[in-house]
Amino acid sequence: MLSPNNQPHQGEPLTFPAAQAALLTPYLPPPPPPSAAAGPSRDDEDEAPAGSTHSPAVHVTLTYAHSLDASIALAPGARTALSGPASKAMTHYLRARHDAILVGAGTAVADDPGLNSRLLSPRPVVLDPRGRWAVHEGSRVIRTAREGMGLAPLVLVGHPAAVVEERRRVLEAVGGRYIVLEPRAAGGRRFDWADVLAVLRREGLRSVMVEGGAGVINSLLAPPGNALVDSVIVTIAPTWLGQGGVVVSPPRTAAEDGTAAPPVRLTDVKWCPLGEDVVLCGRIRR
Amino acid sequence: MLSPNNQPHQGEPLTFPAAQAALLTPYLPPPPPPSAAAGPSRDDEDEAPAGSTHSPAVHVTLTYAHSLDASIALAPGARTALSGPASKAMTHYLRARHDAILVGAGTAVADDPGLNSRLLSPRPVVLDPRGRWAVHEGSRVIRTAREGMGLAPLVLVGHPAAVVEERRRVLEAVGGRYIVLEPRAAGGRRFDWADVLAVLRREGLRSVMVEGGAGVINSLLAPPGNALVDSVIVTIAPTWLGQGGVVVSPPRTAAEDGTAAPPVRLTDVKWCPLGEDVVLCGRIRR
Ligand SMILES: NC(=O)c1ccc[n+]([C@@H]2O[C@H](COP(=O)([O-])OP(=O)(O)OC[C@H]3O[C@@H](n4cnc5c(N)ncnc54)[C@H](OP(=O)(O)O)[C@@H]3O)[C@@H](O)[C@H]2O)c1
Ligand SMILES: NC(=O)c1ccc[n+]([C@@H]2O[C@H](COP(=O)([O-])OP(=O)(O)OC[C@H]3O[C@@H](n4cnc5c(N)ncnc54)[C@H](OP(=O)(O)O)[C@@H]3O)[C@@H](O)[C@H]2O)c1
Repeated sequence: MLSPNNQPHQGEPLTFPAAQAALLTPYLPPPPPPSAAAGPSRDDEDEAPAGSTHSPAVHVTLTYAHSLDASIALAPGARTALSGPASKAMTHYLRARHDAILVGAGTAVADDPGLNSRLLSPRPVVLDPRGRWAVHEGSRVIRTAREGMGLAPLVLVGHPAAVVEERRRVLEAVGGRYIVLEPRAAGGRRFDWADVLAVLRREGLRSVMVEGGAGVINSLLAPPGNALVDSVIVTIAPTWLGQGGVVVSPPRTAAEDGTAAPPVRLTDVKWCPLGEDVVLCGRIRR
Repeated sequence: MLSPNNQPHQGEPLTFPAAQAALLTPYLPPPPPPSAAAGPSRDDEDEAPAGSTHSPAVHVTLTYAHSLDASIALAPGARTALSGPASKAMTHYLRARHDAILVGAGTAVADDPGLNSRLLSPRPVVLDPRGRWAVHEGSRVIRTAREGMGLAPLVLVGHPAAVVEERRRVLEAVGGRYIVLEPRAAGGRRFDWADVLAVLRREGLRSVMVEGGAGVINSLLAPPGNALVDSVIVTIAPTWLGQGGVVVSPPRTAAEDGTAAPPVRLTDVKWCPLGEDVVLCGRIRR
């Protein structure tokens, strides 16, 4: 399954054990049909069933790693060693099982992430309504794409004016693109998640792994977004990062009658120990 | 192991499966020696090795249940159904394996907890430096003690003036007691954990289960208290309570050179799925 250009980094474990992978399968999007799998690669957009009248939903997997006190990082942009090597191997496996990987502007700005997989790389998608991410020649995701080690990103912005010409050139030189989408939620500050998925579907991306950061995850876990989540795969590391970290905790919402909506709960739960960590798989209870 | 007066409540699962219990054993205090076990009961204080010169440490087990976003309750005093029936059975099992159960004034005030076990009840200990807990005839822990379904509490206060005469009478009528301890930590607002354990030891209590709430747990997880913790048993429920809950997350502390102390991490980690929840057992890495 290794694509020719995706060499493993030395000293890092490459493979995610098949037995562990089997536990995750029920929570993952179906593998591409044999014909597609035999085709060139998923970044060939012609593969999308152009003109087909049915438009199956995009499989959404929400996946991230956090501490016992629900922090995904010590501080925004602070590289935080949370989960062990086995979890890293899992992340690469999961990325290879999705057509797209989605992060928010906060992560793009703070982490300069690569967003690829040592196996088969997904299409990076960045939610950047205000055009905060100053992508440039040296950005990791651009270098990764240029070197054929990953795909070029799609960046969703809220308004044409959010696109800086120089950044557009950098993106397009490696096959990436800005896409303008109207932010119809949260008083015009956030995209409606259904709109985001419609964009992905139009791009031929049939599954997306939402990886972070906290802003994106909290937005997706709150209604109405959470109704679009197919599965949740959360790695928990046995450590407390302490007060002041970047915390995943959805906002409290009100039900229609004004009372507090019940907490979001998982069902079809499976807990899989992985090294010192545990991997929680589940689906959001409706 | 059922003590004659501790009848199970109808409709609640009584027993914690032996196979699950075996997984926890390495994290629990040693069972009392056969002679003690054959004696009347652990609330007989004469059992303490009075006058013995060695004073073995008190085994400290930190145990609580929280959501994925590290909340132990929706709000202070809001009864929050977090973990499933199997976890409840485990709590009763764990309580029966410890000489004492310790909570903070916040929990005593907000929850009016029973602090007993359907099996063998531990001695309740309440940290109440300012004497906030208005214990009265109708308090659950008093009724429980009066009915022989649990032991009467020891309440640790910071100053003799924190003891209200009427409350003292209520406590002593069922065999409980106020104990004055100088709060030597946090600028005279908190007890030093070593002092608290010394009190327990003097009372013949050789093991304590620290159950909550967030204030007590955060205080114990921070140095220097965390050096006294022998094991941690945390139940995690697959739900998000959302922003604004009662959160367990220790304060960040500075190392001696002024830099941030490294996050507290567990070692000897075991993850045991229990119903829909997972139980994390571990020891704090030194
Ligand atoms: N441990 C892990 O698994 C993991 C994974 C990823 C990231 N991280 C960490 O997370 C931290 C960053 O977290 P973060 O919360 O600052 O950043 P983030 O979630 O990556 O980005 C938040 C931003 O994304 C945009 N956004 C979020 N939801 C949106 C929606 N529905 N529609 C439109 N835009 C939306 C908003 O941009 P605007 O404010 O510009 O409107 C928002 O401020 C970093 O420290 C990173 O290391 C950890
Ligand atoms: N899910 C669970 O496992 C679980 C278990 C127990 C409780 N809870 C929940 O926790 C909530 C209460 O949490 P909380 O944080 O408000 O209360 P708490 O931790 O029970 O009590 C905090 C108070 O205890 C005293 N205290 C704490 N550490 C101390 C120390 N080292 N020395 C002396 N005194 C100390 C202080 O009293 P002063 O402020 O008076 O100085 C402090 O304010 C309730 O909603 C309850 O339901 C949940």
